[in-house]
Amino acid sequence: MDDVRFFERAGPFSLSEIAGWIDGQIEAGDGDRVVEDVATLQLAGPTQISFFDNPKYAADLAATGARACVVARRSAEQVPAGCAALVVTNPSVAFNEIVRRFYPDAARPARVWDDAPAGDSVHPTAIVDVGAVVEPGAIVGAEARIGRGTRVLAGSVIGRRVQIGRDCSIGPAATVLHALVGDRVIFHPGVRIGQDGFGFAMSAKGHAKIPQIGRVIIQDDVEVGANTTIDRGALRDTVIGEGTKIDNMVQIGHNVVIGRHCVIVSQVGIAGSATLGDFVAIGGQAGVMNHVTIGDGAQVATLSAVKEDLAPGGRYGGVPARPARVWLKEVAALQKLAHDYIAERRPQEKADGNGHEREHD
Amino acid sequence: MDDVRFFERAGPFSLSEIAGWIDGQIEAGDGDRVVEDVATLQLAGPTQISFFDNPKYAADLAATGARACVVARRSAEQVPAGCAALVVTNPSVAFNEIVRRFYPDAARPARVWDDAPAGDSVHPTAIVDVGAVVEPGAIVGAEARIGRGTRVLAGSVIGRRVQIGRDCSIGPAATVLHALVGDRVIFHPGVRIGQDGFGFAMSAKGHAKIPQIGRVIIQDDVEVGANTTIDRGALRDTVIGEGTKIDNMVQIGHNVVIGRHCVIVSQVGIAGSATLGDFVAIGGQAGVMNHVTIGDGAQVATLSAVKEDLAPGGRYGGVPARPARVWLKEVAALQKLAHDYIAERRPQEKADGNGHEREHD
Amino acid sequence: MDDVRFFERAGPFSLSEIAGWIDGQIEAGDGDRVVEDVATLQLAGPTQISFFDNPKYAADLAATGARACVVARRSAEQVPAGCAALVVTNPSVAFNEIVRRFYPDAARPARVWDDAPAGDSVHPTAIVDVGAVVEPGAIVGAEARIGRGTRVLAGSVIGRRVQIGRDCSIGPAATVLHALVGDRVIFHPGVRIGQDGFGFAMSAKGHAKIPQIGRVIIQDDVEVGANTTIDRGALRDTVIGEGTKIDNMVQIGHNVVIGRHCVIVSQVGIAGSATLGDFVAIGGQAGVMNHVTIGDGAQVATLSAVKEDLAPGGRYGGVPARPARVWLKEVAALQKLAHDYIAERRPQEKADGNGHEREHD
Repeated sequence: MDDVRFFERAGPFSLSEIAGWIDGQIEAGDGDRVVEDVATLQLAGPTQISFFDNPKYAADLAATGARACVVARRSAEQVPAGCAALVVTNPSVAFNEIVRRFYPDAARPARVWDDAPAGDSVHPTAIVDVGAVVEPGAIVGAEARIGRGTRVLAGSVIGRRVQIGRDCSIGPAATVLHALVGDRVIFHPGVRIGQDGFGFAMSAKGHAKIPQIGRVIIQDDVEVGANTTIDRGALRDTVIGEGTKIDNMVQIGHNVVIGRHCVIVSQVGIAGSATLGDFVAIGGQAGVMNHVTIGDGAQVATLSAVKEDLAPGGRYGGVPARPARVWLKEVAALQKLAHDYIAERRPQEKADGNGHEREHD
Repeated sequence: MDDVRFFERAGPFSLSEIAGWIDGQIEAGDGDRVVEDVATLQLAGPTQISFFDNPKYAADLAATGARACVVARRSAEQVPAGCAALVVTNPSVAFNEIVRRFYPDAARPARVWDDAPAGDSVHPTAIVDVGAVVEPGAIVGAEARIGRGTRVLAGSVIGRRVQIGRDCSIGPAATVLHALVGDRVIFHPGVRIGQDGFGFAMSAKGHAKIPQIGRVIIQDDVEVGANTTIDRGALRDTVIGEGTKIDNMVQIGHNVVIGRHCVIVSQVGIAGSATLGDFVAIGGQAGVMNHVTIGDGAQVATLSAVKEDLAPGGRYGGVPARPARVWLKEVAALQKLAHDYIAERRPQEKADGNGHEREHD
Repeated sequence: MDDVRFFERAGPFSLSEIAGWIDGQIEAGDGDRVVEDVATLQLAGPTQISFFDNPKYAADLAATGARACVVARRSAEQVPAGCAALVVTNPSVAFNEIVRRFYPDAARPARVWDDAPAGDSVHPTAIVDVGAVVEPGAIVGAEARIGRGTRVLAGSVIGRRVQIGRDCSIGPAATVLHALVGDRVIFHPGVRIGQDGFGFAMSAKGHAKIPQIGRVIIQDDVEVGANTTIDRGALRDTVIGEGTKIDNMVQIGHNVVIGRHCVIVSQVGIAGSATLGDFVAIGGQAGVMNHVTIGDGAQVATLSAVKEDLAPGGRYGGVPARPARVWLKEVAALQKLAHDYIAERRPQEKADGNGHEREHD
């Protein structure tokens, strides 16, 4: 099931051809090399091209198995032997163009139904197991597969090639796109799985959409609350681990990886590429910034904002989130300071009568 | 209408039988007693079983009309005469098991349609009054009732046994499950009413779903904004009082009771079992913690977090929410303290040239 | 396309007739004057009636082209020559009544389908261009127009008279009401466009709905994330400028005007009548209060609350949002003050053993 692809890939293309698209210079390597796909530095293999832009990932560059890598001039020497360097002015923008050429149909939301006569709610190429239920008003798209005992409730939409395991409950009125879903999963009404992540190559002329060619992997026994949104990955997958429970109206960005048996309370936002370990708990309305990692068993208080990595097992709170003991002391200290300040000033205000002005300082 | 039940109840069961499920010991009372249902301590009558776990509800235990109560050893003596005590190690986990046995079909989202031929959008057992409109693409489930003058707009889903009064407007694309809805109610697009509350018996091995067997009661003239979610109750009902207006993307947890003519602005979250009086106003993006009570006419500022009960009639703000006068003074004091601190340090920084370091303390 | 109206207008009515509805006194002007429509002071022309209530808009009153204006006694003299003054006790409540009389069908959500046989998913009066796709389970309402190359994906609902341009992607499961949409626009799953704004004339007896007769204008190349809600205007339009990208679960209130090429990250809330310039960027979970203006190119940090106008080009953060340099210094200063306070008190606590009490001050 891990091999399912949701977008048609063009190519292969030669390195010279690719260099031509982006006005790039091949520094190390042979222009005749054939490139079959795009990938992150970490995941790329010997037929794939990747890119390097953020110094934070220098170690990934050094260890990459990619056949070629798009880089800026200043980083060309960091490209390891065996990997061709494709030097450009702006690696992110150039790589975005390469992704668009390999995946031309990823630039806009895919059709659920493909060309087939309407009239039924299950596409003729979909496979719905005996013992699964597809209620009236639900749509099961092309090549989708629905496992035994699963209920696709009224008004839900299952996208093309989506696979849903056994004994799941979907909706009513949920949408599941570009996703592989395990067994006994519950998606409550209005859940949105697998739409495009929010990725744009921004510029002073406008913002170009970065194709989002990853998927969403939902493991067994996950429950997702009403109107929660989980975007699919950009180059890799968004993953929700086994047994994790997510409340209503939670936002989960592209490339997020959530471990097993986590609990995410309502209105939390988890930004792109954040990673949560197992048994992490996050209180309501909290936020997790992009690229941070939260260790196994960590607990984050309501309304906190996680801006840096959190160690496993601790309790955290505040903006930015820090160990709860420190946070609570600081909150108490500030409250005391404010009280003292107000108490000190009060008699003086009465004496000189300028209390009003002071409030508007 | 108050007698409508959405889940099939198994049983009745004898106390001995129940004790067997949960490895419990019958301390006071007769194992042959017949139990017909589960209920909260407050609501339980002489054929029902309840549980006691949280010392906060000791008075409810003392006054309960339940036939039997699941308790820990240390609380067995608090069970009043006439009520059998069923002693277990973990009352919450044990009671969860009992609820599952009484309501086996509540463990996963219910079917909207039940077994009936598809082809129409109104289930053959539903009753749609003359003068009500069900638009194309809308689904009205089994045994549902739609009152005169009500419009179920395109793509909306009305769940099994749901009752909707007169002159209501539902959707487009709203879902209404396990709910009893009054007259002249408006649910805007994407509203989610009556899905499972977020309740799990958590453990180091994973989190077991607590069946949510309550309902949602929406009184007359309520308006609910787009993509707002209102979960149904766990053992009792979630209630939205007459004339209350709720904006877009508000989250309302299970067992919440909101009074009449309240105004809840967008992106507010109200956690489980919170209670709001009449004419309460809550500003945008604020949060209300679980189990707190907000008195009649209280006004809570934008972005506040209500963590403790608020008295009627006051204005409140801040995190945690406190009287607005106190809050605003504290905010002003802290701002002044910060300004003073910065002003004091500035000349020194210039003098000793270590300002940069200080900012990174 | 700008002339499309979504609500049927009653009238015309004479000024005397209108005065009769609201118990108003005609101060300057002729009761026989004919009034054809309602409008804001800024937009009103010589056949329209407006109202004045908020001193902030005194300049708009002075410059209005309205034929008549509803005002309080104290403001009657501010009404310019050529504009009749209609004096009442409460101008907002009175004007609300006038709007209701002109637009009686705006008081509740409109039907998507109107009276026509069901059975098809495209209303017989809708126009779907050759080369547009309407998938199974989608509904295109009366008099709607769908441009060439546009995909209305499964389960989406296009409301009456809505116009959607070319090469757009809608849904699956999005709803678009009272809107005019440009070319190459993407609405992700669960997007809610054009429902009523949150407007009520509040009183101690309850809250009367203010009809929302504006529209939503979405310009070319806009992208809107999953489950985001954009309300239509009250008297004027809500506008999203060309190339603006909006993430998931963002709330945009009535009358909001967003410029070109803005970037709004997930879970942001923008309250009614706020105005954003071009190339504005707003970080996740931030809030923008009603009626504020944010200048071109301004950047607002995650979790900030914009309570006052922000100048173009700056970077801002905090609650309330202020220049980022000031904000970050203040945050650092408060943290230092808290640390100092805690450090100072620590030895004393150990000495007198009352640290515990102090924490509960």
